[in-house]
Amino acid sequence: MNACIRAVVRTGIFRGLEVYGINRGYEGMIEGDIKQMNSHSVSNIIQRGGTILKSARSSEFRTPEGRKKAYESLKALGIEGLIAIGGDGTFTGAKIFYEEYGIPTVGCPGTIDNDIYGTDFTIGFDTAVNTALAAIDKIRDTAAAHDRIFFVEVMGRDAGFIAVECGIGGGAEFVMVPETKTDLDAVVNTLKSHREFRSSSIIVVAEGDELGNANEIMAMVKTKVDNPAKDFKVTTLGHIQRGGAPTARDRVLGSRCGMGAVDGLIAGKAGCMSGVINNEIVYTTFADCIGKSKPIHPDHLALIEILNI
Amino acid sequence: MNACIRAVVRTGIFRGLEVYGINRGYEGMIEGDIKQMNSHSVSNIIQRGGTILKSARSSEFRTPEGRKKAYESLKALGIEGLIAIGGDGTFTGAKIFYEEYGIPTVGCPGTIDNDIYGTDFTIGFDTAVNTALAAIDKIRDTAAAHDRIFFVEVMGRDAGFIAVECGIGGGAEFVMVPETKTDLDAVVNTLKSHREFRSSSIIVVAEGDELGNANEIMAMVKTKVDNPAKDFKVTTLGHIQRGGAPTARDRVLGSRCGMGAVDGLIAGKAGCMSGVINNEIVYTTFADCIGKSKPIHPDHLALIEILNI
Amino acid sequence: MNACIRAVVRTGIFRGLEVYGINRGYEGMIEGDIKQMNSHSVSNIIQRGGTILKSARSSEFRTPEGRKKAYESLKALGIEGLIAIGGDGTFTGAKIFYEEYGIPTVGCPGTIDNDIYGTDFTIGFDTAVNTALAAIDKIRDTAAAHDRIFFVEVMGRDAGFIAVECGIGGGAEFVMVPETKTDLDAVVNTLKSHREFRSSSIIVVAEGDELGNANEIMAMVKTKVDNPAKDFKVTTLGHIQRGGAPTARDRVLGSRCGMGAVDGLIAGKAGCMSGVINNEIVYTTFADCIGKSKPIHPDHLALIEILNI
Amino acid sequence: MNACIRAVVRTGIFRGLEVYGINRGYEGMIEGDIKQMNSHSVSNIIQRGGTILKSARSSEFRTPEGRKKAYESLKALGIEGLIAIGGDGTFTGAKIFYEEYGIPTVGCPGTIDNDIYGTDFTIGFDTAVNTALAAIDKIRDTAAAHDRIFFVEVMGRDAGFIAVECGIGGGAEFVMVPETKTDLDAVVNTLKSHREFRSSSIIVVAEGDELGNANEIMAMVKTKVDNPAKDFKVTTLGHIQRGGAPTARDRVLGSRCGMGAVDGLIAGKAGCMSGVINNEIVYTTFADCIGKSKPIHPDHLALIEILNI
Repeated sequence: MNACIRAVVRTGIFRGLEVYGINRGYEGMIEGDIKQMNSHSVSNIIQRGGTILKSARSSEFRTPEGRKKAYESLKALGIEGLIAIGGDGTFTGAKIFYEEYGIPTVGCPGTIDNDIYGTDFTIGFDTAVNTALAAIDKIRDTAAAHDRIFFVEVMGRDAGFIAVECGIGGGAEFVMVPETKTDLDAVVNTLKSHREFRSSSIIVVAEGDELGNANEIMAMVKTKVDNPAKDFKVTTLGHIQRGGAPTARDRVLGSRCGMGAVDGLIAGKAGCMSGVINNEIVYTTFADCIGKSKPIHPDHLALIEILNI
Repeated sequence: MNACIRAVVRTGIFRGLEVYGINRGYEGMIEGDIKQMNSHSVSNIIQRGGTILKSARSSEFRTPEGRKKAYESLKALGIEGLIAIGGDGTFTGAKIFYEEYGIPTVGCPGTIDNDIYGTDFTIGFDTAVNTALAAIDKIRDTAAAHDRIFFVEVMGRDAGFIAVECGIGGGAEFVMVPETKTDLDAVVNTLKSHREFRSSSIIVVAEGDELGNANEIMAMVKTKVDNPAKDFKVTTLGHIQRGGAPTARDRVLGSRCGMGAVDGLIAGKAGCMSGVINNEIVYTTFADCIGKSKPIHPDHLALIEILNI
Repeated sequence: MNACIRAVVRTGIFRGLEVYGINRGYEGMIEGDIKQMNSHSVSNIIQRGGTILKSARSSEFRTPEGRKKAYESLKALGIEGLIAIGGDGTFTGAKIFYEEYGIPTVGCPGTIDNDIYGTDFTIGFDTAVNTALAAIDKIRDTAAAHDRIFFVEVMGRDAGFIAVECGIGGGAEFVMVPETKTDLDAVVNTLKSHREFRSSSIIVVAEGDELGNANEIMAMVKTKVDNPAKDFKVTTLGHIQRGGAPTARDRVLGSRCGMGAVDGLIAGKAGCMSGVINNEIVYTTFADCIGKSKPIHPDHLALIEILNI
Repeated sequence: MNACIRAVVRTGIFRGLEVYGINRGYEGMIEGDIKQMNSHSVSNIIQRGGTILKSARSSEFRTPEGRKKAYESLKALGIEGLIAIGGDGTFTGAKIFYEEYGIPTVGCPGTIDNDIYGTDFTIGFDTAVNTALAAIDKIRDTAAAHDRIFFVEVMGRDAGFIAVECGIGGGAEFVMVPETKTDLDAVVNTLKSHREFRSSSIIVVAEGDELGNANEIMAMVKTKVDNPAKDFKVTTLGHIQRGGAPTARDRVLGSRCGMGAVDGLIAGKAGCMSGVINNEIVYTTFADCIGKSKPIHPDHLALIEILNI
């Protein structure tokens, strides 16, 4: 996020604009928690996790009264355009706000799940995947030393992007994602057939898999494998997947989207998101970003099946 | 562990001994899963997590029949001394086995919890602490961005060493460990008083705290703080605290303990552990290692209290 | 590389082929240093840096006699297709060998510099960039603490991809790459103007910049800035940019290219490389891979200029 | 360093003192670049590399006039005691200043080289060792893949502590340090004898070795080994060894030394350093810190010899 904020601030100043930072999202916009930013305000932050502008959920912004207050905050400062970093919720709010008050808004895709249409990758996704993968590498050390079967739950309530990349990168035996129906019998059969020559296994589970969470799935598998000697373990990676110094790719992506958002506003774009598709900045309407779904590449699903023979 | 295995193998060979590696601990000893090691067997492993000899629990070794089989495996290969890496369970087994069969045994302290008397640090502890700390650093990014209160559960069923070092190193507001009685009201009062100027907090909980696990403690605190606007979260670090490339300190400690164990055996030591106290190799009887307890340094507890004002 | 080797082996077996591994590249091919691989040969390697098949330069393969021996090695084992991982040198050899002996060959782009036409990224590039970036983050800590100007030399003899991504991601003041003419006066002027409010600076230099290496460029700048109080330092990152656990992206890319190479061979492809462009496998002739140049995206160059105001 | 600053500030406040932070060391003291610190001034810094108070060399402080100005800065603010973090140079200045002006001063050992008498470890040493070791792990990947001999130069102008810990932890074939005479013939003979079964080697060189720097030593060895097929490489780790998120151990050590320094001042200590020996805070006079030398533990030197057979 910080790479994106930095890019917005500096591109804005470079293009001759005045730039303000709104703390804690729509909540801060309602409260008028807004300060002018200069080039120095965003020095030495690109390598930091989190966001210097903080983040918050705002139930008030979902009400007309809240949005009215937010608009007045902007008006008081003469703010003529808005850049919002976030995901579905952020863009839904931005869409309504733009329709009601006409302040041109461009979004940047900031969510670790990568489930936003209109950009190949979202800001934070690559960092989350690498963090999860480093954890899986460690778990593999233990799994191998103790001949255990590990179910590792990664983030992804509605989308399996993190799970799939971690599964390929982590050499997982199986990956369970919301996008595909999990064939539990296949899992069980493979685990049984593997038993002789490869006794440890890693199964990556997206938190939103249709069969349940990692604990629930482990319980099902355990019953079916029915091998008392076998050690089954669950690790839920949870919040460690957020935060941390961003990867190079996320810093570059955040910087490009941020620059793209400013340049988009200047060029008259509004009600859309600045994403990167096939290495080019592309603007996609908020309606499409929210409404259209982004599939997992079939090659990725095939890779998992093939590489774990 | 691998650093220790490497040191045992190479010191043994350097001193003119033949060295064998037993796979999967006492289980492999019973099954005769033993192979001769040369200098090359332990090349390029010092940086790897886990253990090349694998690890297993052995219920059979707790029976006289199991130990008899284990003894016969050793006898068949002419093995005259034993080096066992592990913790309480490993040393208890080694003690009985030594008393029954008289094969001189020296132990090395291999457990991440650091709760073994007779050594300042156990092999794996420093790596686990740094891994947990890196996770806490990431969680802090999220906590700060969202003004949340995080309960982070780290390993330590009987001892709070990991929790205390993570608490100091991670700048935690509170640390809850089995060694001290947790004053929940103090926690609640501090959280309330912090609310105005510092809205995010990290509380590190050792899994063996007398009040319960992190989820249970969070539930108690949440009721008492009674602030619906406040976001409470739990992260249980779990198995990611094991595995991973060991830190420099663990590699050096593992190497020293391994060398000390071999030199101890040669010098006629038996029924004891090779540890490092005040930077010198010290041999402590298994009885003391198992029976005596190692306290957390009072300065460390004081630091947590002082540094979180 | 290991991710790619693993994918080649397992995809091959999955498709019903016999797969052999050739040690030390063309050198091992000439010497017949070749062994059959099974699924287990590539277990637990995806997270390891380096290559399990080792690497070597072969001057003998540049002679007709050498290539004849190599052909005979393959013939003796009944090898009917070849997959070569590497860069320009590897592909040049593969091209000639294919023309002479007709053994179908598909390449995979394995070089950290990213300067191969026919793929958006090369295997190893993302890992190298993240490693270099982590080093630059550390250097920034020192630069900021001491108000120093650091020239950091990164790899890139003919291409500035690593330098540009590190420059954007590391928040560098300037990036000097072979693809563009470096305007030394602009650098000097900016350093002078920065002096008052921002006293530390990072300048990333690709080793192949037309002005010289980092030491030479620092000497030129130092003379022109002519401020005895100012501390100028050079760090050449060198070989640490290679090796290390690969990033998620490199593991996925290596896996895809490896799978693509096997599937390409089966589909009758030859004399070409299996790369990934816009997230799809694309086959490009060796002639194009070697002969065509891949430009740095102009947005990336613009970002560096804009973000360092 | 930041852990230490944080501990000084918060312990001071906890004990009822007012605490001021002096920017850029003695230079800032002379200039009066001093600001009051509160608990919040040191929030969220413990995980950051570098120092929030910046660092500078001060030639003016070596003059009586400079020290007089510095004294007046302190006097103007009513500062009654001083805590100085640094090494030999810092303590030499502090010693003179204390003798001249009688302002009680306690030091904290802040240098990555670990060459300060009066503490087992210096703040920053453990982080530097782990950073260097991570680099050596990467280099080993390359060395192994290409059968190369690598000379890796680590910091240590007067002391080999970093080199020795990196040598043990990195599984180096040799370590060359200022404290011992390097036997070049032994190195050459071992490299020759290793050639057949182990073709890659890592040699760690402390920058202050009496034979010269890594480039010079490599040149000597290369001539003597005289094997044109052998690839010799040098990597000088340089400034990447500074900076970066500190390890757990360094954060704990920094916190303890900082707390010890404040408590020492309160207890009437002056002209001495607060270090940690055998896990207890110990105060050592500046004269001893500067004048006495701290030897490398003989077990560590023995380990390197034994473990690389």
